[in-house]
Amino acid sequence: MKIIMTFPAVFAIFCLLFSFSLSAVKDFCVADFSAPEGPAGYSCKNPAKVTVDDFAYSGLGVAGNASGSIFKSAVATAFVDDFPGLNGLGVSMARADLAPGGVIPLHTHPGASEILLAAEGTVTAGFISAANHVYIKTLNKGDIIVLPQGLLHFAVNTGSSQALVFVSFSSESPGVQFVSNALFGNNFPTELITASTLLEASEVKRLKVVFNGSG
Amino acid sequence: MKIIMTFPAVFAIFCLLFSFSLSAVKDFCVADFSAPEGPAGYSCKNPAKVTVDDFAYSGLGVAGNASGSIFKSAVATAFVDDFPGLNGLGVSMARADLAPGGVIPLHTHPGASEILLAAEGTVTAGFISAANHVYIKTLNKGDIIVLPQGLLHFAVNTGSSQALVFVSFSSESPGVQFVSNALFGNNFPTELITASTLLEASEVKRLKVVFNGSG
Amino acid sequence: MKIIMTFPAVFAIFCLLFSFSLSAVKDFCVADFSAPEGPAGYSCKNPAKVTVDDFAYSGLGVAGNASGSIFKSAVATAFVDDFPGLNGLGVSMARADLAPGGVIPLHTHPGASEILLAAEGTVTAGFISAANHVYIKTLNKGDIIVLPQGLLHFAVNTGSSQALVFVSFSSESPGVQFVSNALFGNNFPTELITASTLLEASEVKRLKVVFNGSG
Amino acid sequence: MKIIMTFPAVFAIFCLLFSFSLSAVKDFCVADFSAPEGPAGYSCKNPAKVTVDDFAYSGLGVAGNASGSIFKSAVATAFVDDFPGLNGLGVSMARADLAPGGVIPLHTHPGASEILLAAEGTVTAGFISAANHVYIKTLNKGDIIVLPQGLLHFAVNTGSSQALVFVSFSSESPGVQFVSNALFGNNFPTELITASTLLEASEVKRLKVVFNGSG
Amino acid sequence: MKIIMTFPAVFAIFCLLFSFSLSAVKDFCVADFSAPEGPAGYSCKNPAKVTVDDFAYSGLGVAGNASGSIFKSAVATAFVDDFPGLNGLGVSMARADLAPGGVIPLHTHPGASEILLAAEGTVTAGFISAANHVYIKTLNKGDIIVLPQGLLHFAVNTGSSQALVFVSFSSESPGVQFVSNALFGNNFPTELITASTLLEASEVKRLKVVFNGSG
Amino acid sequence: MKIIMTFPAVFAIFCLLFSFSLSAVKDFCVADFSAPEGPAGYSCKNPAKVTVDDFAYSGLGVAGNASGSIFKSAVATAFVDDFPGLNGLGVSMARADLAPGGVIPLHTHPGASEILLAAEGTVTAGFISAANHVYIKTLNKGDIIVLPQGLLHFAVNTGSSQALVFVSFSSESPGVQFVSNALFGNNFPTELITASTLLEASEVKRLKVVFNGSG
Repeated sequence: MKIIMTFPAVFAIFCLLFSFSLSAVKDFCVADFSAPEGPAGYSCKNPAKVTVDDFAYSGLGVAGNASGSIFKSAVATAFVDDFPGLNGLGVSMARADLAPGGVIPLHTHPGASEILLAAEGTVTAGFISAANHVYIKTLNKGDIIVLPQGLLHFAVNTGSSQALVFVSFSSESPGVQFVSNALFGNNFPTELITASTLLEASEVKRLKVVFNGSG
Repeated sequence: MKIIMTFPAVFAIFCLLFSFSLSAVKDFCVADFSAPEGPAGYSCKNPAKVTVDDFAYSGLGVAGNASGSIFKSAVATAFVDDFPGLNGLGVSMARADLAPGGVIPLHTHPGASEILLAAEGTVTAGFISAANHVYIKTLNKGDIIVLPQGLLHFAVNTGSSQALVFVSFSSESPGVQFVSNALFGNNFPTELITASTLLEASEVKRLKVVFNGSG
Repeated sequence: MKIIMTFPAVFAIFCLLFSFSLSAVKDFCVADFSAPEGPAGYSCKNPAKVTVDDFAYSGLGVAGNASGSIFKSAVATAFVDDFPGLNGLGVSMARADLAPGGVIPLHTHPGASEILLAAEGTVTAGFISAANHVYIKTLNKGDIIVLPQGLLHFAVNTGSSQALVFVSFSSESPGVQFVSNALFGNNFPTELITASTLLEASEVKRLKVVFNGSG
Repeated sequence: MKIIMTFPAVFAIFCLLFSFSLSAVKDFCVADFSAPEGPAGYSCKNPAKVTVDDFAYSGLGVAGNASGSIFKSAVATAFVDDFPGLNGLGVSMARADLAPGGVIPLHTHPGASEILLAAEGTVTAGFISAANHVYIKTLNKGDIIVLPQGLLHFAVNTGSSQALVFVSFSSESPGVQFVSNALFGNNFPTELITASTLLEASEVKRLKVVFNGSG
Repeated sequence: MKIIMTFPAVFAIFCLLFSFSLSAVKDFCVADFSAPEGPAGYSCKNPAKVTVDDFAYSGLGVAGNASGSIFKSAVATAFVDDFPGLNGLGVSMARADLAPGGVIPLHTHPGASEILLAAEGTVTAGFISAANHVYIKTLNKGDIIVLPQGLLHFAVNTGSSQALVFVSFSSESPGVQFVSNALFGNNFPTELITASTLLEASEVKRLKVVFNGSG
Repeated sequence: MKIIMTFPAVFAIFCLLFSFSLSAVKDFCVADFSAPEGPAGYSCKNPAKVTVDDFAYSGLGVAGNASGSIFKSAVATAFVDDFPGLNGLGVSMARADLAPGGVIPLHTHPGASEILLAAEGTVTAGFISAANHVYIKTLNKGDIIVLPQGLLHFAVNTGSSQALVFVSFSSESPGVQFVSNALFGNNFPTELITASTLLEASEVKRLKVVFNGSG
């Protein structure tokens, strides 16, 4: 198989590339927050204006101020709304800094499964299955746990030093719903909360103060 | 694990919530019919303008006038075009009212499987598999049947009273194609119909009158 | 286009059908509970043994005994585990009977969006979005509400008569996680519950008695 | 960046490869027809026993005997049941040979969209949309038409010579349902056919003879 | 079951059709290249302006000038960017013409599996699995081979006459990445290429001339 | 809304839970490596035998021996084959340790997008798009970059100290294909390599020695 390369041949390669390049832009779709969003994500930024900075993000590089929070934890997200290069790619991340005793409160991600990595310190994490079993594990540095989509889960720094956690999601937009904020941090009527959970009204009212809720 | 709540702590919770709230809007995408539509559905309405009325729909609450139809049936849909809150959520419904002897004509849903619930009366429903088996079942009040995606199916009120049927779909936009309307209710040329079905031309022409077709 | 039909021609059609029929079995996959299950569902029952009864289900036809429950409600499901014909088809249903004041407790479906239909009576239903807004609507007979995947929701019979609700899901296996059962109906340690929700330990312990939990 | 290669280094590469290779088998899943099938397809053949012949197929290389069929056409499929290497890969093909005047009868594919390529001859193909519009196009050699999932479509050799058509699908198991076979080629009761289509009973009975049906 | 057809009955059918027709447009979504594009594809053209010509494409009907290319091959694509009717339908095609000894260079499709059909001539095609096995097959006229998503593959005309290949994809936008173009046809720094492949810098620089690269 | 709790009521809750629990097992599907695997993943382990250890993994906690490799890097994966709890959950991870100058060689993941996190040190990472643009970014501790599915990418430790990288994937089984191993680490015939890449035969043969290939 002998191949002789000439100038016109090189030109032909260029043509070949061009004939494919229009379709090739589909390998990513950087979010254009100024254009319409649909069920599958944001509209795509013009590929000609995309740079490497659309694919990189620095917001997870700084520890949050965990000590200032009631839960002694701080969370920073790299979801598609923070990091437009993730749009359509089905993956995102977040970091959490936890002071000793700090907690990532009980919550779900309606749209993604999660892997939690204990990057520093000792973290006890767990989830409750729909079959109502509780799975809890204490993770040391470098250990990971998987938390299936939509199930209640939490993490606590059970070590004596600051803990750092990185979490990865199976969606660029996992969503998050904290149980106590959903119950007590809005105008959900106390009577409906008690009826649908059997919590005492007095406890509901106490927590509405804590979580800034009303009603 | 002792937790001391102070004002700055409450403020920190507020901040925590805020850091998640941008991504949180992805849990729904109410259709904005005035913006572009794509393969995954309509563009999302601005979440700040969404109210509970976007998620509720009353159009299935009234019985249709079955007696006025050639098939003695009436159908009302709650598809995404009727009910914008369904956009992106993968589920929709419809109701059908059937007078005694009334029929939901033979049709397919190209984009969804269906569960048919006999809410009132007695209904005989069936489908034909791709392997060309016919599955037919008479349903009494409260019975359900599942009709796999894309397969021909039908229902007949085989009781002596009015029947009410609710159907649920695995898509917010199941689509629907009635066989007789597809054959006889448009300008599909008679010669091509007869060639591709072996129906007699005279029968095709008779039914083109019934179904308002031409050609 | 003249078509002359002869006996060999009829035979040829039979052959044509046969050449397609092997593939045709893929239009459904009735669950075989005795064979392995995977992430996409159960193994398929041998199509030769499938009958129409695999596609029909009567378990939603009888009202549950709502008055005997602490929540004055009763639920019956038609999920794939109940109704094997749903396997792989992406749709399922359930019914709930609610005495006056009866409640479907606060819960999520990790794997599906839902449409709730008020088939009889008056029902107040609602959900909390990930952005922490509360959407509540009172539904009269025939009204529907859509409840997006993975979000906390509930329903209460706010009328003066028995209520009947049919719900439809965008999955044959939506899963369900009740908040109070997840918190109080298992061995989730009280200390972790209080830390991850800020509920009082005394309230947690009271409800562990109600929901049959320990720890 | 200077790289010095030594023998232990070469060994280390081998180790690196091995650490990835277990996961690597997931790039294909050749069907093992003797093991269970699920909604996502067949079980995977042991990768160690897979050869290139699992990925290649010769069954589309021979023209069918179109003249012997009532529709003067012959179809050969390369669906997953014919060609196990397609399992899980979301694509399949078929060929059709059409004598002059030959027809691919009106049908749907419940599980796939299709591209039809006129490889030889002149073919008139068309489909009917759910909105009940008829789209018909005459294709010359090399022309293609796309036929959206689940919609009724057909093709006719409107040229004066033999036509050859290759069709490609967006699924390894598109399924197929021929309208006339579904209506007339099984035991679908005549009364239900007439009720659900408005066809005349006499025409139904005539065609049940043609298509080998009963009832 | 007696059916009496009257004029109002015919009118009622028309109404029935209308009530379904809004949803029915979802069976296709012809690309509107002037409106926003998202992760799931282009915005939909107004269905009222769609004609059959949106669903048909002639660009694969003409042989490319293979002899003018360095690889003695020419490729024409029918991807969604070429053929807007494919938008959202999950299937596309391309053709390649290969002079004797002509080559489709080593490449991947990040977004689709492929079936390659040897329509004319003799073609040797192959792919390398992630487990690093090489699967190579010589195809004669009418033979097909499946090439799993994302894996390196190639084809060579190993016959003595011109070869024609049609390829079908499991996506309307499969993307394509040629190895040599990706390495040598842009400004990828030589030092990074050598470090990440162990190719010699001199060979990299030689091929950067061939493939029009820099750096 | 008054709720009176009695013993039978508590019992009724227990029954309610039980009626849901069968379906609830679908929230996860821990891989049973001894049962069949399909296109969607492994068969599910019996939920009764699942423990928290199925959801946790320690294999990413130890630094690999980067200095012993030709690329001065070591990779450990937490894919589904390593970590059975990931089965069906759409997410996985890996870690890479890179000595100064160490490299993760040029490769693709056919089945997943990736986020790369520079956990320690300074790493220069990049990818080449299908449109043949090169996107390269130097990441400091805590920075992340997203690498779209199926595209060629690499990373180099461009700092002066050891680097640690964690990568997250949008699939539990992303697959991996290293370019140089695919070209030179198997029996891919030299003549076909040179024809499909334009690499010199002498360079191919040199690298076949390095990567342990033949042919």
